[in-house]
Amino acid sequence: MNNFTFFSPTCFEFGRDTESRTGALVKRFGGSKVLIHYGSGSVIRSGLMNRVQSSLQASGLDCVLLGGVQPNPRSGLVYEGIEICRREGVDFVLAIGGGSTIDSAKAIAAGVPHMGDFWEFFSGKAVIGKAIPVGVVLTLAAAGSEGSGVSVITREQDSLKRATYSDLIKPVFAIMNPALTCTLPPYQTACGAMDIMAHVMERYFTNTPDVELTDRLCEAVLTTIIEQVPRVLSHPDDYNARANIMWAGMLAHNDICGAGRDQDWASHKIEHELSALYDVAHGAGLAVIFPAWMKYVLEHNPMRFARFAVKVWGCDMDYMNPLRTAREGISRLEAFITSIGLPLNFAGIGAREADIEYMVRTSGVNENFKLGSYVSLGAADVAAIYRLAL
Amino acid sequence: MNNFTFFSPTCFEFGRDTESRTGALVKRFGGSKVLIHYGSGSVIRSGLMNRVQSSLQASGLDCVLLGGVQPNPRSGLVYEGIEICRREGVDFVLAIGGGSTIDSAKAIAAGVPHMGDFWEFFSGKAVIGKAIPVGVVLTLAAAGSEGSGVSVITREQDSLKRATYSDLIKPVFAIMNPALTCTLPPYQTACGAMDIMAHVMERYFTNTPDVELTDRLCEAVLTTIIEQVPRVLSHPDDYNARANIMWAGMLAHNDICGAGRDQDWASHKIEHELSALYDVAHGAGLAVIFPAWMKYVLEHNPMRFARFAVKVWGCDMDYMNPLRTAREGISRLEAFITSIGLPLNFAGIGAREADIEYMVRTSGVNENFKLGSYVSLGAADVAAIYRLAL
Repeated sequence: MNNFTFFSPTCFEFGRDTESRTGALVKRFGGSKVLIHYGSGSVIRSGLMNRVQSSLQASGLDCVLLGGVQPNPRSGLVYEGIEICRREGVDFVLAIGGGSTIDSAKAIAAGVPHMGDFWEFFSGKAVIGKAIPVGVVLTLAAAGSEGSGVSVITREQDSLKRATYSDLIKPVFAIMNPALTCTLPPYQTACGAMDIMAHVMERYFTNTPDVELTDRLCEAVLTTIIEQVPRVLSHPDDYNARANIMWAGMLAHNDICGAGRDQDWASHKIEHELSALYDVAHGAGLAVIFPAWMKYVLEHNPMRFARFAVKVWGCDMDYMNPLRTAREGISRLEAFITSIGLPLNFAGIGAREADIEYMVRTSGVNENFKLGSYVSLGAADVAAIYRLAL
Repeated sequence: MNNFTFFSPTCFEFGRDTESRTGALVKRFGGSKVLIHYGSGSVIRSGLMNRVQSSLQASGLDCVLLGGVQPNPRSGLVYEGIEICRREGVDFVLAIGGGSTIDSAKAIAAGVPHMGDFWEFFSGKAVIGKAIPVGVVLTLAAAGSEGSGVSVITREQDSLKRATYSDLIKPVFAIMNPALTCTLPPYQTACGAMDIMAHVMERYFTNTPDVELTDRLCEAVLTTIIEQVPRVLSHPDDYNARANIMWAGMLAHNDICGAGRDQDWASHKIEHELSALYDVAHGAGLAVIFPAWMKYVLEHNPMRFARFAVKVWGCDMDYMNPLRTAREGISRLEAFITSIGLPLNFAGIGAREADIEYMVRTSGVNENFKLGSYVSLGAADVAAIYRLAL
């Protein structure tokens, strides 16, 4: 097991009607003037915005609004948010939404006290040294951004999608009401599930030995998703299944499943080029890339994939031919992806073989910068994985 | 699933040599003058105290020392610690040790700014409203106090053992170096393992439906302990096994395994009377009480115990007779307890049948105050469980 720091200081307020506690939580964590950051008008139409604003008012808190966050959130809105916060004296950013809105809120929160361009945090030219606090009212189980220190933003002019990380942008609180996810369309629910599974699998496939406990935690989250997602696809109002999925989404990415392990993250980076270029849902892109990555790296450690097959998918172990079991695990993942209505190849997301060369280039992979730790991938490897997903 | 708040703000610094970071962490969390609280001289003889003090000095921090914490920590030393902190202007309590030392440190930290008697927090007459920060250098995998808001103290004059809880006494950091646990005697290692398992089982046996994810997390922690403890008993220096156990001890009690579930805690309260009266190790008392409790409540929900048998102990499910499988799970737990050198009955801990009546009385159970939530236990039930442990 590797040495590690685990720090997940977010206060999670989980369950029905918990959005009524927003005002009290903003106050507890020191906010007095709030930027409410959100995506489309659906949070207004659903009445959620009203309930949150009432709670803020009841706690005597002022707020300003900034909507318009898109999936794969853009730098332009971040600049706008930073400007509003500075002009209006905002000292707390409240995201109402899913990963995109939270990531945009984190970028704003870090950008407000920063003298330079906030993009420096994403290009690697600066490190976040200060941020105003971020709170969350979660409406989507997927990205796990409510419990993580990660933000992913796409720069508009060149479609560059980049991530940054800091303890300072971990949300101080996250309100998680599973009932808010019951109205999600099946496709979005499925994309969220794939994102959650991918967060766990990026940590599960590791070369670090003797990490038995986190292996088992990973398996616990994966088997929960596999069990619960079909339930909500057939019964969207199943509150308890939604609740298990929503909590799994947080655990998949606050790093409790990754403590003490080398982590991979190649599939995420390979996918980021897809969703930046074609603006597909991140979860759909992961559905296309992850099985392809698995096939490409399978022989690096077939027993790891055999364990995945047995413990996660309930396959019988073929002790004479573990590689057969290993392959069966990948097939089972593909069958699951198809069963929840997600694509498995480029055609399914409108991606084109002709763009592979461009995506390999924009991924930044070269002889000195490779992707992944489970298997280290150069440009030719990344291109081969894209081709396996054709 | 129930509504819940999950808040585990401790910064965990895990791995080899992490005690060298003590000074930096105390400073990060605002300490300037530190009370170092510890138990016996072993932390001095092992050189750990020296390394911690060097780290504090390197960060320019002053400290005063207070040793002498005993297992089942006493109120007397807490009063002494509070007085020292006030007199010396201490603003940070650093516990070096296991659960007893951490619990004592928490009580001191809450007592310092409190006008009245600190015991009011334990008798239920006052609620902790303020505390100076607590940090931990953990030397024992057992109580999980490094990640919890619980403190358990025994009042000397009448052997009353009582607990209190507050977010405000959750450690701000916990340094967890598994190598420090490699020199533990087998009996203490085993007692710690039993304590860890008990923390999970108090949460596992619940009437709350649809808590699949936390069920699986509980099973992940339990199976890890069952797998790793025999490894360290035969090879005490097995760092990785020690590491898995140490991290399991934290996860067993920071409530990640209990989120959204009714929890029981009857066995803990029944055991507290044993360890208060006979001063036996908490883990040994739990080894005696937990199987007795299980036998007493088994028929409340045999399928719950059948799941425990299958998922935790790897028993085959007897679909014709689930009760048989359920009983087999309890037998497997008993065999495990014996195999790691712990007692299963009163004789093994020097407890006497004649004291049962006294213990039932001091537990405070009566018609208006019952123990447990999985099955609600009155005085006659508690007496029957003690008798099952004879």
